Amino acid sequence: LSTIALLTDFGLQDPFVGVMKGVIAGLAPQADVIDLCHGVPPQDVRAGALYLRASTAYFPDNALFVGVVDPGVGSARRILFARTKRHWFLAPDNGLLSWLTEPVVEWRVVENAKLFLPKVSSTFHGRDIFAPVAARLAAGLDPHDLGPQLEQPAVALPWPKDEILAIDRFGNAITSIDRPVKTVRYKGKTIAVKRTYADAAEGETLAVYGSYGLLELSVRNGDFAARCAASRGEIIDAGK
Amino acid sequence: LSTIALLTDFGLQDPFVGVMKGVIAGLAPQADVIDLCHGVPPQDVRAGALYLRASTAYFPDNALFVGVVDPGVGSARRILFARTKRHWFLAPDNGLLSWLTEPVVEWRVVENAKLFLPKVSSTFHGRDIFAPVAARLAAGLDPHDLGPQLEQPAVALPWPKDEILAIDRFGNAITSIDRPVKTVRYKGKTIAVKRTYADAAEGETLAVYGSYGLLELSVRNGDFAARCAASRGEIIDAGK
Amino acid sequence: LSTIALLTDFGLQDPFVGVMKGVIAGLAPQADVIDLCHGVPPQDVRAGALYLRASTAYFPDNALFVGVVDPGVGSARRILFARTKRHWFLAPDNGLLSWLTEPVVEWRVVENAKLFLPKVSSTFHGRDIFAPVAARLAAGLDPHDLGPQLEQPAVALPWPKDEILAIDRFGNAITSIDRPVKTVRYKGKTIAVKRTYADAAEGETLAVYGSYGLLELSVRNGDFAARCAASRGEIIDAGK
Repeated sequence: LSTIALLTDFGLQDPFVGVMKGVIAGLAPQADVIDLCHGVPPQDVRAGALYLRASTAYFPDNALFVGVVDPGVGSARRILFARTKRHWFLAPDNGLLSWLTEPVVEWRVVENAKLFLPKVSSTFHGRDIFAPVAARLAAGLDPHDLGPQLEQPAVALPWPKDEILAIDRFGNAITSIDRPVKTVRYKGKTIAVKRTYADAAEGETLAVYGSYGLLELSVRNGDFAARCAASRGEIIDAGK
Repeated sequence: LSTIALLTDFGLQDPFVGVMKGVIAGLAPQADVIDLCHGVPPQDVRAGALYLRASTAYFPDNALFVGVVDPGVGSARRILFARTKRHWFLAPDNGLLSWLTEPVVEWRVVENAKLFLPKVSSTFHGRDIFAPVAARLAAGLDPHDLGPQLEQPAVALPWPKDEILAIDRFGNAITSIDRPVKTVRYKGKTIAVKRTYADAAEGETLAVYGSYGLLELSVRNGDFAARCAASRGEIIDAGK
Repeated sequence: LSTIALLTDFGLQDPFVGVMKGVIAGLAPQADVIDLCHGVPPQDVRAGALYLRASTAYFPDNALFVGVVDPGVGSARRILFARTKRHWFLAPDNGLLSWLTEPVVEWRVVENAKLFLPKVSSTFHGRDIFAPVAARLAAGLDPHDLGPQLEQPAVALPWPKDEILAIDRFGNAITSIDRPVKTVRYKGKTIAVKRTYADAAEGETLAVYGSYGLLELSVRNGDFAARCAASRGEIIDAGK
C-alpha cells in the first residue's frame, strides 16, 4: 500500500490539505500522496461520490482513497473503512462511497482512537482522524485494528435519474445519463449527441459521452453552464 | 531534512509554484515537497503568518517551511532563516514568521549569493533565491553558510485584538479570538459559541473554535462571509 | 528520466489531473510528478505556450513536459513528441510547443496505440494517451517506439507583436515585449518602466520586466488588470 489519494471539498485556498499532508508525512514518509481532487463543491457529497466513481479504476492496485466531504463532522456520524478487490477507502458514512464501480467486500467502522491524533477537534477530522489513519494503513496497519466489521453503511445514495450532477471547469454539465441516447431536451431546446467535441461547429451546443463516462452537455470551445445558466440538480429530458 | 513545505500567495493559476518545484527538483531530487498552501491572499502577510501558526505543529521534525508572501520583493528587505526546536524556516523579514507557535532559537540573514540562481530577478525571489536555498538546505547545507546570525527580525507583527483575520473556503470568518468566550457580537447580532457545526440547526449562524484553534463565525452548512458580507479586518465584540 | 512536469488547462476543481496522476502512478511509480501549472485558461494554447517558454529552463535535465491544452481532442490532430538538448515534451500538434527556448532536435508523431490505455475516449486524451505514454517514457521506453519521426509540426505560432498575452494571479498583465523599452502607452496613459515593483509608490501604475522575462504592466501592491479592465489580446504601444 503506497499510494494515498485524497479527495476533499477543502479547496486549496486554505492550508487544510497541506496540513493533512504534513500529518501523513510524519507517520508514513514513504507514502506517495496524490491529490485526486480538492475541488468538490462545499459539502456536496454527491459530487464527491461522482468523482470517486469516475476515478478509482485508473489508480493502481492497493491505492487507498481518503474521502473527506463531511458536512456532519463533529456529529455522531461514523467513519467507514471499505475494501474492494483492488482498493481501500476511508470516508464518512454519508453516502460518499455509494457509487464505487467495484463491489465493497469489507466494511469497518473506524473507531480505534489510538490511531487518531492525540487531540481530536470537532471541526477538522481530515487532519485529526483521516490523515493519521490513512498514514498508518499505508505504513502497514492491519484494517482489523480500525474497528469492528459492519454489514453495510447507514447511508447509500441512489443513482439520480437524468439530471445534472456537476459542472466542470470548462462549463460542461455532467449528467447522470449513462445509457445510449441520441438527443436530450433541456430548457426547451433539443441537443444532439455527438461522438466528440470536434464533431460540432465552433460555438455549437452538443452532448457527448465525456470524461466521466456520462453524457455531458457542452458548447464546442465554449462554456455551456455560463451560456445556459445550468446548475446542479436540474432535470434533463432524455426519453426512456 | 527531507520535507520542504511551501507557503506562498502565488496561487496556482500561473506556473510560479511549478517553477519553484523545478528548481528544487534539480538541486534536491530526494526532497519531499509539500504544498502547505498557495492561496494566501495576494500580499497578505498576516494571513500567511496565520496559516503558518495553524500548521507547523502537524509537520514532522526537521521540516523546512518556505514562506513567500513578499510584497517587498526587489527592495532592500532582508530574507531570513529561522530555526525552532523542531523546524526550519525561510521567509522575507516582513512579519511572516511573527506568530510561530514555538520560539525561534536562531535567526540568520540569507545573503550568500553563491546559493542563489546565477541570475536573480527583481520580481521572483521565490524562484531565484528561496527555492535554491531551500533545496540546498534539504541537500545538507549547513545554515552557517547562509549568512550571519541576527538578534531579531526587523518586523514583528503583534497579535491582533478581536478581529476577522481570514475567510476560509467555506465562508467561515476566522477571528483572532483564542480565549474562551460564550457569545460574540458582530454587525448588531449576538452569535452563540457552539461546540461544533452539528450543534447548530441547518442554516443557523454560530461561532465555533475551529480548525485554526481560533473562534470562527460560521453558518451551519452555509457561507457566513457571503451571508454577512464579512471581510478581513472587521472588529468583533467578544467582551473582555 | 525521472521528472514528469504536467501543464494543462484542466484546473483543479475536477478530478482530471488527479486521474492522470493515478495512471502515471500505476505505470511509473518511481516517477516524480510535478504540477507545472493547471491554470492555463481553458483552450488558451498561447498561454500554455507562454508558460512553457517561461518555465522549462528551471527544470532539471531530462525532465519530460506533458502539455495538455487540447481544444482539438477527438479530432484528427496529431500528438507530438519533441526533444531538445535538455528536455522531452508531449503535446498536441496545435502550437503549444511553438515558443520553447531551446531548439527541438527531434519531432515524432505519437501513434503507437499499444502504449495508450486499452480504451481511448474521444474527450480525455490526457488520461488515455498522454499520461500512459509519459509514464512509459519515464519508465524507460525508447522514443523510437512512439511513432515515426517528423520534419516539423503542422502548427507553429508566431510570437505576437506587443500585446497582452496573459493576466497573472496578482493582476499583472504579461505582454509579449521582451526588448528594452522605457515607457509604454496603454488606453491613453503612459506607463514608465521601473526596475522592480518597489521602485513605484504604493498604488502607482508601473511596467517591469517580470517573472516571465517579459514586460508586465502592474500596480504596486495592487491589481492592474482589475483597475484598467485589461484583458488578453489587447495591443500595447511600446514604440519601435
